[in-house]
Amino acid sequence: MATIYDIGLGAAFNIVTATIFLLIFAFLRLQPVNDRVFFPKWYLKGMRDSPSSAGAAVNKYVNLDVRSYLKFLSWMPAALKMPEEELIEHAGLDSVVYLRIYLTGLKIFVPITILAFGVLVPVNWTNDALDDLKVVHSDIDNLSISNIPYGSKRFIAHLVMAYVFTFWTCYVLKNEYERVATMRLRFLASEKRRPDQFTVLVRNIPPDPDESVSELVEHFFLVNHPDHYLKHQTVYNANKLADLVEKKKKMRNWLDYYQNKFERKSKRPTTKTGFLGCFGSEVDAIDHCKSEIEKIGKEEAEERIKVMKDPKSIMPAAFVSFRSRWGAAVCAQTQQTSNPTLWLTEWAPEPRDVYWSNLSIPFVSLTVRRLIIGVAFFFLNFFYVIPIAFVQTLANLEGIEKALPFLKPLIESPSIKSFIQGFLPGLALKIFLIVLPTILMYMSQFEGLISQSSLERRTASKYFIFLFFNVFLGSIVTGSALEQLNTYLHASANDIPRIIGVAIPMKATFFITYVMVDGWAGVSLEILRIRAFVLYHLKNFFLVKTEKDREEAMDPGSICFYWSEPRIQLYFLLGLVYAAVTPLLLPFILVFFALGYVVYRHQIINVYHQRYESGAQFWPNVHLRIIVALIASQLLLLGLLSTKGLEEATPVLLVLPILTFWFHKYCTHRYKPAFVRNPLQEAMRKDTLEHAREPNFDLKSYLADSYLHPVFKSDDVDKFYVADDPGAEEVIVATKRQSRRTTPVQSKYDGSERLSVPDSIPER
Amino acid sequence: MATIYDIGLGAAFNIVTATIFLLIFAFLRLQPVNDRVFFPKWYLKGMRDSPSSAGAAVNKYVNLDVRSYLKFLSWMPAALKMPEEELIEHAGLDSVVYLRIYLTGLKIFVPITILAFGVLVPVNWTNDALDDLKVVHSDIDNLSISNIPYGSKRFIAHLVMAYVFTFWTCYVLKNEYERVATMRLRFLASEKRRPDQFTVLVRNIPPDPDESVSELVEHFFLVNHPDHYLKHQTVYNANKLADLVEKKKKMRNWLDYYQNKFERKSKRPTTKTGFLGCFGSEVDAIDHCKSEIEKIGKEEAEERIKVMKDPKSIMPAAFVSFRSRWGAAVCAQTQQTSNPTLWLTEWAPEPRDVYWSNLSIPFVSLTVRRLIIGVAFFFLNFFYVIPIAFVQTLANLEGIEKALPFLKPLIESPSIKSFIQGFLPGLALKIFLIVLPTILMYMSQFEGLISQSSLERRTASKYFIFLFFNVFLGSIVTGSALEQLNTYLHASANDIPRIIGVAIPMKATFFITYVMVDGWAGVSLEILRIRAFVLYHLKNFFLVKTEKDREEAMDPGSICFYWSEPRIQLYFLLGLVYAAVTPLLLPFILVFFALGYVVYRHQIINVYHQRYESGAQFWPNVHLRIIVALIASQLLLLGLLSTKGLEEATPVLLVLPILTFWFHKYCTHRYKPAFVRNPLQEAMRKDTLEHAREPNFDLKSYLADSYLHPVFKSDDVDKFYVADDPGAEEVIVATKRQSRRTTPVQSKYDGSERLSVPDSIPER
Repeated sequence: MATIYDIGLGAAFNIVTATIFLLIFAFLRLQPVNDRVFFPKWYLKGMRDSPSSAGAAVNKYVNLDVRSYLKFLSWMPAALKMPEEELIEHAGLDSVVYLRIYLTGLKIFVPITILAFGVLVPVNWTNDALDDLKVVHSDIDNLSISNIPYGSKRFIAHLVMAYVFTFWTCYVLKNEYERVATMRLRFLASEKRRPDQFTVLVRNIPPDPDESVSELVEHFFLVNHPDHYLKHQTVYNANKLADLVEKKKKMRNWLDYYQNKFERKSKRPTTKTGFLGCFGSEVDAIDHCKSEIEKIGKEEAEERIKVMKDPKSIMPAAFVSFRSRWGAAVCAQTQQTSNPTLWLTEWAPEPRDVYWSNLSIPFVSLTVRRLIIGVAFFFLNFFYVIPIAFVQTLANLEGIEKALPFLKPLIESPSIKSFIQGFLPGLALKIFLIVLPTILMYMSQFEGLISQSSLERRTASKYFIFLFFNVFLGSIVTGSALEQLNTYLHASANDIPRIIGVAIPMKATFFITYVMVDGWAGVSLEILRIRAFVLYHLKNFFLVKTEKDREEAMDPGSICFYWSEPRIQLYFLLGLVYAAVTPLLLPFILVFFALGYVVYRHQIINVYHQRYESGAQFWPNVHLRIIVALIASQLLLLGLLSTKGLEEATPVLLVLPILTFWFHKYCTHRYKPAFVRNPLQEAMRKDTLEHAREPNFDLKSYLADSYLHPVFKSDDVDKFYVADDPGAEEVIVATKRQSRRTTPVQSKYDGSERLSVPDSIPER
Repeated sequence: MATIYDIGLGAAFNIVTATIFLLIFAFLRLQPVNDRVFFPKWYLKGMRDSPSSAGAAVNKYVNLDVRSYLKFLSWMPAALKMPEEELIEHAGLDSVVYLRIYLTGLKIFVPITILAFGVLVPVNWTNDALDDLKVVHSDIDNLSISNIPYGSKRFIAHLVMAYVFTFWTCYVLKNEYERVATMRLRFLASEKRRPDQFTVLVRNIPPDPDESVSELVEHFFLVNHPDHYLKHQTVYNANKLADLVEKKKKMRNWLDYYQNKFERKSKRPTTKTGFLGCFGSEVDAIDHCKSEIEKIGKEEAEERIKVMKDPKSIMPAAFVSFRSRWGAAVCAQTQQTSNPTLWLTEWAPEPRDVYWSNLSIPFVSLTVRRLIIGVAFFFLNFFYVIPIAFVQTLANLEGIEKALPFLKPLIESPSIKSFIQGFLPGLALKIFLIVLPTILMYMSQFEGLISQSSLERRTASKYFIFLFFNVFLGSIVTGSALEQLNTYLHASANDIPRIIGVAIPMKATFFITYVMVDGWAGVSLEILRIRAFVLYHLKNFFLVKTEKDREEAMDPGSICFYWSEPRIQLYFLLGLVYAAVTPLLLPFILVFFALGYVVYRHQIINVYHQRYESGAQFWPNVHLRIIVALIASQLLLLGLLSTKGLEEATPVLLVLPILTFWFHKYCTHRYKPAFVRNPLQEAMRKDTLEHAREPNFDLKSYLADSYLHPVFKSDDVDKFYVADDPGAEEVIVATKRQSRRTTPVQSKYDGSERLSVPDSIPER
């Protein structure tokens, strides 16, 4: 049993670890050579330049200015300084609203912590039920609800506090929902002209023997939206082509690598033709790469012609653009034909956000795919232990010795043997947990969602469910979710909260440690960007020839919503569950939220570059999960108190989940439409304004190929840059804009930069 | 324990009862004096005339044609003859689709019965588990699943049959959903011009200090739907006015009654001024009524002026009409402003269907009302026994003797005393069950739904839940729902189906009796129309002076969806649950469906006059409830089999509810939109057609006051008919149309019959 002293020691250790991480960060970030690792956002914005031009050569790599080391924590206030308006301008609404999740955590838990320490801790402390019982207990339990004797009237304090916590949480949630909805609406209203404002994605266009998809779409919308239809862009099944392009790009990287090697060593490098360059006959690497690139290039050209000529590669889907935002808003929100599964319309995601490879999934298979993934996820959630146990039985020492006999003498030494025996069984599980978000992402992709933002949201929901059952409940009930499932099925409906509730106070110290190790250290590690750091320097050494290559090597990353948001939600859950039970956990949660807020604010300002902008569409999910955590906390408190001899507590507490659920219904009804639908009034207002400002704007050419599959464009972009034209390089440098790889969507499609597209693609 | 002989006796008895009812009906319907009771639909259609003109006086009342009595069952084939197309024309789609519920029952259960008797009955019969056990059992149990010994492999037959039954039911359901959806779409497409096609109900218009509601609506729609907006009609809070009108109408009825009495007895009748004419001073009844009418008339006139002048009586809601169906379809399906709780648009119900008094409920209170009713219904469902028990303790013999001492000698006689003691306790419960649908209807009205059709649907859902818990589960688990709730909460999740499942075979005979008494006899009673029969003859005797009065006295009634549909669903539930357990129940269900189909078809052709036409909007609810019954049957079979020693059965059976649920999701996704949304293509098609046919149609004057509160019209209608103008009477008779009270909606609003409206009402 951990005592307060143990916890304090653990906290001290974790604080030191986190501080070390932060110190390393503070040191590394000041070195110019790491500039592109820790400040890529500014490079992409064109606000910062490679430090190549400034001063002595050594300054290029190491910072020798001593004063700057003294202010090693200066990034923290700097991160907090940027006002919200500017931050939205700088990093987009998604990032800013993501930060609000941490802020919401602080808003909810600061008053709850104060109240809990002001009221509940004294109430718990001034008892001695545990001393009387003479059971083994730690002094942490003296601060928790366990210290109150059976049937005591003091539980009323916990009841009252449960109400106060619920109302406070709901109050904060409502305010935040309202605030975020307002921010989203203001953001949408202030946005500049964007192709997705005028465009609707139409899916499941019925086949017609007499007309091509393109003709069919045109006729349908000319008839049914005569005053508003402008143009359309059919969707190609270019997945194979995209694969080829990707393959060619990889091969080019290898070519660069070998050429660099050749330049350094003056000896032509060789490679093997087989799998991963390990097997097969040895050839000259540079020639091999060149011939491969040529081969793939030919295949690609053939495939390109095939995609554009073959009517089979045209999917029954199209991006339809309208003359006005009003027309698009109307089309996206209405049902087109009497068969609700044909001519399905929805808002087009912004071009960057489209997940192209799923657009080619036939619409009819989507329901089946969803069912399959539903069942698969159920089994993954409750039975994931089975395959891991199977792998564990395979990965024993004898197996390794048989497969890799040369390791035998090493393994046989007793110390290493015991280490491996202790380490190996957990390894499969650890690997599984690390790759889990990726597995879940693949599952969501299989479901056929067509935008990256919706994929991330769906994956986040799955991951949260997994964490809830396997990390939260799994740690409390101790047992795999499979065993739990058995417990739940065999226990009565009101025994389940009791079984879990009773175990909750006992697990407080475990979760305190969890918060410190996973939360504190995890966040501090995030700021170090170890993976990006290593990869950048490797690439910089092996691949980079030009400034443009260096920019390619730079990986700003993005928030990774599907991976990080569910983990924050776990802390909401822990905080709400333990608020009334063991308030000692709350300060640890607070530190997590505060640290997370500062670190992520810094990362968002200096590092991350979002791949898309969904306008905070994820907030309803965030809200929902906090509500789920709140209801879970209420039910578990109910279960716990029902064993404490206060029978009046049950009906009093039962009111809470009902009220909370109703509150959620209310919020959904009130605020969710702002995240789902587009009001006509706003559309009309923007249309009118725009029409007054630019009466002669040529919308048709503006929208010309904004929704063309990226392979039809990116390849040309590639060609353009690969062409050895030093002049072009200089011209572009001179315009201050440094980055050409990732540019805001606006410029990507405006007239000046648009590149020629093969003529055979119908441009309507 | 009932034997097959007992059941046969019961069946014989019930068949005789039902046959007697049908014979009485066959006799009564042939009497001309009852013509308006049994054929009111034809009178309303103007296809049948009062038998006053034909032949001898006696023929007016009694049918003396002997031959017609011989063909006393001739109505049955006649009822089945009318083809569906004609029936839709004759009675509307709602009625025809209502009949399809019975037809669906037959389609589902005829093959299931054949299969069950072909496979399951032999499998069950050829065992002797019950004989071996030497338990008391009836020979019915020999046909049921109880006769198969523990752990027998024969249960596989039941498993397979459960699959077959599920797939067959789903197949029929899918076909029916598709069929009904097609019928609805065809019906909507073939409809003539109707005001609701062009009209949208706008609710929660935000208050504006500078503009009246009417101006605000006009400005908003002129800005946001500039090409489509036509006119609007604000909504008045005329509930008080409607009450006054109603009161005056009642008083007029009394006046008629007293005048008739005076004419017959030549003695001026008197009445008392107090409550119900029982207390207070005695006055001349005719004078009293006349003065009362005058008084109410004055109040009414004042209120009428107040409603129209006072801006407070104008609700923040309006019926907005558009130039085209396309414009209305767009407006109804889109969100208007960024605040999703303002300017809410939905399709206007057809004028007959509007539930006017709920239009004046402030929109903000709707969520609270829904919560209140949700909680109230929960308590009604599970705790309704408590108030009834309380009433029962009050209504004992001593209480009655004290309240009504003059009854004492009567009550004290032993035979009567024992009768009352046996009868009284159940009385409160019986009364409660009879008035329950009405209570539920009031609850739905309180929720604030704004159309009668949605009220009926909501009430039906509530009633089905009540029947499911209190009649179905209540009869099986034997115990009030309150006790059941206790059982469920204390039993584990997989014990609940087991507890109920095990009891199911034992209750088969009870439910067979229930089907006969409630189902067979209930349906046969329906055709007799006892209540309408008695009321008509009473009114005819006391109130009727003119042909028009006789028409008023005639009560065609309507299907009463909220009351009758949940009861049909109970038979679906029984049939599906017992199909695999005790197939003997199935033929009884079949008889119910067949009888119900014939009887209701007859009633729909000859009697019922629907108050509104929703275009079969209730079918998704019907579908949902059959799915619920199906899933319940699967879970209960699972519970039953889990006690029978076949462990493999549980996972095999668990697949079924999942598949069924998924099937339901699929159907909802595929067919439900046809019942909720209006496709733009259809709207555009009708617009184009109409525009080509009647390019100069004056839509504005056509829509002029179609959505005016009925009190502003009905009163004028009243005045029109009350006016002693024998000339008008004759003219209308001459046009063959007999009825003026209820006419198809088309004629009600066309130019010829429209009545003048006070000028002060804004007509936009």
